[in-house]
Amino acid sequence: MDDVQLWRELGQQLRVDSVRCAAAAKSGHPTSGMSAADLMAVLLAKHLRYDFAAPDLATNDRLIFSKGHASPLLYAMFRAAGAIPDEEMLTYRQFGSMLEGHPTPLIPWVDVATGSLGQGLSIGVGMAIAGKYLDRLPYRVWVLCGDSETAEGSIWEAFEHAWHYELDNLTAILDVNRLGQRGPTMDEWQLDHYRARAEAFGWHAIEIDGHDVEAVEAAYTEAEATSGKPTVVIARTIKGKGVKAVENKEGWHGKALDDPEAAIEELGGLRNIVIEVAKPEPGEPHRFETGPLELPRYEVGSKVATRKAYGEALAAVGTAQGDVVAVDGEVSNSTFADIFKQAHPDRFFEMYIAEQQMAAAAVGLQARGYRVFASSFAAFHSRAYDFIRMAAISRATLCLSGSHAGISIGEDGPSQMALEDIAAMRAVHGSTVLHSCDGNQTARLVAAMADLEGISYIRTLRPDTPVLYGPDEDFPVGGSRVVREGSDVTLVGCGITVHEALKAADSLDVSARVIDCYSIKPIDGATLVAAAKETGRLVIAEDHWPEGGLGEAVLAALAAAGVSAEIRHLAVRDMPRSGKPDELLAAYGIDAAAIAEAARA
Amino acid sequence: MDDVQLWRELGQQLRVDSVRCAAAAKSGHPTSGMSAADLMAVLLAKHLRYDFAAPDLATNDRLIFSKGHASPLLYAMFRAAGAIPDEEMLTYRQFGSMLEGHPTPLIPWVDVATGSLGQGLSIGVGMAIAGKYLDRLPYRVWVLCGDSETAEGSIWEAFEHAWHYELDNLTAILDVNRLGQRGPTMDEWQLDHYRARAEAFGWHAIEIDGHDVEAVEAAYTEAEATSGKPTVVIARTIKGKGVKAVENKEGWHGKALDDPEAAIEELGGLRNIVIEVAKPEPGEPHRFETGPLELPRYEVGSKVATRKAYGEALAAVGTAQGDVVAVDGEVSNSTFADIFKQAHPDRFFEMYIAEQQMAAAAVGLQARGYRVFASSFAAFHSRAYDFIRMAAISRATLCLSGSHAGISIGEDGPSQMALEDIAAMRAVHGSTVLHSCDGNQTARLVAAMADLEGISYIRTLRPDTPVLYGPDEDFPVGGSRVVREGSDVTLVGCGITVHEALKAADSLDVSARVIDCYSIKPIDGATLVAAAKETGRLVIAEDHWPEGGLGEAVLAALAAAGVSAEIRHLAVRDMPRSGKPDELLAAYGIDAAAIAEAARA
Repeated sequence: MDDVQLWRELGQQLRVDSVRCAAAAKSGHPTSGMSAADLMAVLLAKHLRYDFAAPDLATNDRLIFSKGHASPLLYAMFRAAGAIPDEEMLTYRQFGSMLEGHPTPLIPWVDVATGSLGQGLSIGVGMAIAGKYLDRLPYRVWVLCGDSETAEGSIWEAFEHAWHYELDNLTAILDVNRLGQRGPTMDEWQLDHYRARAEAFGWHAIEIDGHDVEAVEAAYTEAEATSGKPTVVIARTIKGKGVKAVENKEGWHGKALDDPEAAIEELGGLRNIVIEVAKPEPGEPHRFETGPLELPRYEVGSKVATRKAYGEALAAVGTAQGDVVAVDGEVSNSTFADIFKQAHPDRFFEMYIAEQQMAAAAVGLQARGYRVFASSFAAFHSRAYDFIRMAAISRATLCLSGSHAGISIGEDGPSQMALEDIAAMRAVHGSTVLHSCDGNQTARLVAAMADLEGISYIRTLRPDTPVLYGPDEDFPVGGSRVVREGSDVTLVGCGITVHEALKAADSLDVSARVIDCYSIKPIDGATLVAAAKETGRLVIAEDHWPEGGLGEAVLAALAAAGVSAEIRHLAVRDMPRSGKPDELLAAYGIDAAAIAEAARA
Repeated sequence: MDDVQLWRELGQQLRVDSVRCAAAAKSGHPTSGMSAADLMAVLLAKHLRYDFAAPDLATNDRLIFSKGHASPLLYAMFRAAGAIPDEEMLTYRQFGSMLEGHPTPLIPWVDVATGSLGQGLSIGVGMAIAGKYLDRLPYRVWVLCGDSETAEGSIWEAFEHAWHYELDNLTAILDVNRLGQRGPTMDEWQLDHYRARAEAFGWHAIEIDGHDVEAVEAAYTEAEATSGKPTVVIARTIKGKGVKAVENKEGWHGKALDDPEAAIEELGGLRNIVIEVAKPEPGEPHRFETGPLELPRYEVGSKVATRKAYGEALAAVGTAQGDVVAVDGEVSNSTFADIFKQAHPDRFFEMYIAEQQMAAAAVGLQARGYRVFASSFAAFHSRAYDFIRMAAISRATLCLSGSHAGISIGEDGPSQMALEDIAAMRAVHGSTVLHSCDGNQTARLVAAMADLEGISYIRTLRPDTPVLYGPDEDFPVGGSRVVREGSDVTLVGCGITVHEALKAADSLDVSARVIDCYSIKPIDGATLVAAAKETGRLVIAEDHWPEGGLGEAVLAALAAAGVSAEIRHLAVRDMPRSGKPDELLAAYGIDAAAIAEAARA
């Protein structure tokens, strides 16, 4: 069998196996894989450089199924590569199988989870940045995209960033099968539309018939030979290709075929081709030089914004750890990520005003082993919430920094004030949520984040706040700090409200304990439970909406311990306006006066 | 003074007033307005059709500052239009002023809040759809965009949808001033890049010098004369134009000028031009025919998926209310919004896989007075979280439907399972969060949503569930339903866990009360407090992460009433896998057996 015959046969095998997977599961997405089978056959047989026995090899090419629902095709490729036996392939979608409805990194050959469309290419940009600028290895990143998902704006963020960073190691394979879930796409088979857009975004674009394996091969070769820009292979394909009952027909998205046996016969029957996938050349990733960790130190009683302490600490952590990388969403002079950029320009990547791309790039970079800190205004991480949700499914380790939290930012107004970020970030699986109130605490927490697994988030403040803690104090994740002892009432705060609570305690006639709850998830239940038992009354104050923030985290900790207390919960309950920070803290009832009043009541 | 002189003078006035606003506030964004001053001067003096005395007039043109930080320019336009006096303009960013840091609808002439970049054009698409397909009036939608914000993918979602819907009543004015917050944009002054992209997305594009008022006038005239497609005016401009100290200089984003007096003198001094802005022709919006409300009725004991009941109820509500409009993110055959589409094709708009555009279109449509229901998988509303956050600042009324919630969806796996949606939606200011468990309840809640103010969200289920309630039962928002009386323990659930709780109650030897907490925000504190007092023990079960969902909402309600109880909280605590719904409910500890075990303990 010559190469061309092999590719054709392999394409049919991948179709047959997609049909078989869905038949075994009695559900799933065979038709979306059948359109891309020839594209993947040629990739697997000729262009992919990948050692299935060593998926962590730094020099391996990377393959992302951005159209994650086409997972039966991916699993069929694993079988064709000899990575899994036939019987395992047929466990698709069964409880306990690693071959889930959409791919996740439970599979050794899958780096990131997909299934929320329009994310895979954006993640691929991060991996390609890692390859070109950090690892400095010649591996390629291949991303299989669906045509439907180009409706997601994140795809165009990826196109622009890939152009900007000249990612000639990135190839997007666009499977234009014309049909989405509920019907035709906006552009159907108008390949020229996709081509014009790709070229306008600076990419090299190649239009082909995605079922002509020789054309596919030539396109990949051309992509590999293209330098200075990424390439998109725009392939006209037919959904359900090869089985007349479903070919190019609406109503067959996400369904097993009615008669899989007939379909397999129509496709030429079961095949057992095993491809010896080419392995990459050996190579070692570049390693950046490191030095000692010298965190910034702030004098107690001086003032510094915690966002500034974030930037200074991050630069220090970057010196100590060569794997630390920072990305920012065009606000690095506000988040102070620019201090890191000055110190480590080779490890800073500007993501412009594209928070989705920023989160996705971070996911891609961490998949290549980097420790990524991604910063923006806390409010604007909400733009990437679906990416952060998916990052948890990717079992990703990310460090997020959200500055300008809450009403304490003042005059810029509510659009710039994060008031839902604690709720949103707590509701990310396995997350850590931190909110510091002073410079030294911030520095310690940033250093701690560099060692945490999973998705961690630190919320920082715009205004300068007094330094409460010495530079040698420790702030373990999951801890809290009793800033002031007291026995009649406990005032619980985090961030700006710690300072307000201290002022409130000063103004009270009763003995008020003040707890700085800098670790909101995990929360220091023991200290809160002790306070509830010993003082019986808690006033919780937070610069956040009442829902899902510090207040409810405290309630959950007490409930878990079976302990109750009299609770007053101060939070932002009206839509805030522009104004001076102090005016706003007073107007929305979270300043020292409001805390003192609640404590008295 | 001839027209051209007037436009030039007005442009200078708008610059002077931008400088004065920022000088009065000692902060803000004068330079970002100065680049667009000539663009806005010509618009105000010649092309805008707007009755400032009657901002609700249906025939008024609409103007959106997508680059909301350029608000001093907008406020200067209001002064120039005679809408506000000089002294009011100078209250910019002061507490209590309607002229906030970024525009909000507290201002009568502002329809929607901006300030999170890349949203204004997407909202404009919704308004233009309203004008062309619903109101059927000839008003135009003008959107001032910054060049920096084109990095947001949502901009390209707007471009593609505006092309698809042939929105020739929409004009984007792109202020290409080359400089973002922290430095140059990716494309700087390469206007041909923007032009190629716009044309590739099907728009008519015009490149001009944005300080040549005659070119600006000609471009607007050309835009108005272009039919069948939207137009973008790509204007090369200079940030800080007119004041040498800041012109085209980095480091002057978001700052008041150092010497405003000198700047005003350089700009030719204070001016007091008042423009008589042209009023629109009279006209009345189209009204759709209505009929009686006939909600679907499901037989008790039969089975129906709540997502299907959503679609059937929405179609019925659409028959009864001519202002009801539906949008969906290319999953209408799964969310069952397609039932509405079949019944009311003129009032359904497909938003393809672009959840950000879907949310933004909904905001634009509701700003024109429509009652919009926007549906997707519950997990994918997370893609639009920043838009939903901003919609609250827009004081928007939206009805969101999220289907396929939680692990009960089964085999598709975690990427498709919403497990954070309740937390995220509760943390939206003024929101209503509902989660129904049966068909008749769903229908009643959908009908109730059509009368709610603010952002409401209903979470629906993929699998068929037994009909518990009769079709004539009422389910007030803020209520709950005691499905089964009991005195020893209370089982609290919503959605799928109501059914599991009922099975658990059947299996228990003790007397278990079961509460269906279908309204999570507002929550029925009275019923929960009574249960806590009367049974002393609550088992709360939810198909959601532990954070920010039903469990914490219940805790907050009890804490607010000063009532405590012994609480067990069952929620999804591990990353779920693919599997059958029943397998997953058992594996992750929220099925009847787990609830019964918790009740026994």
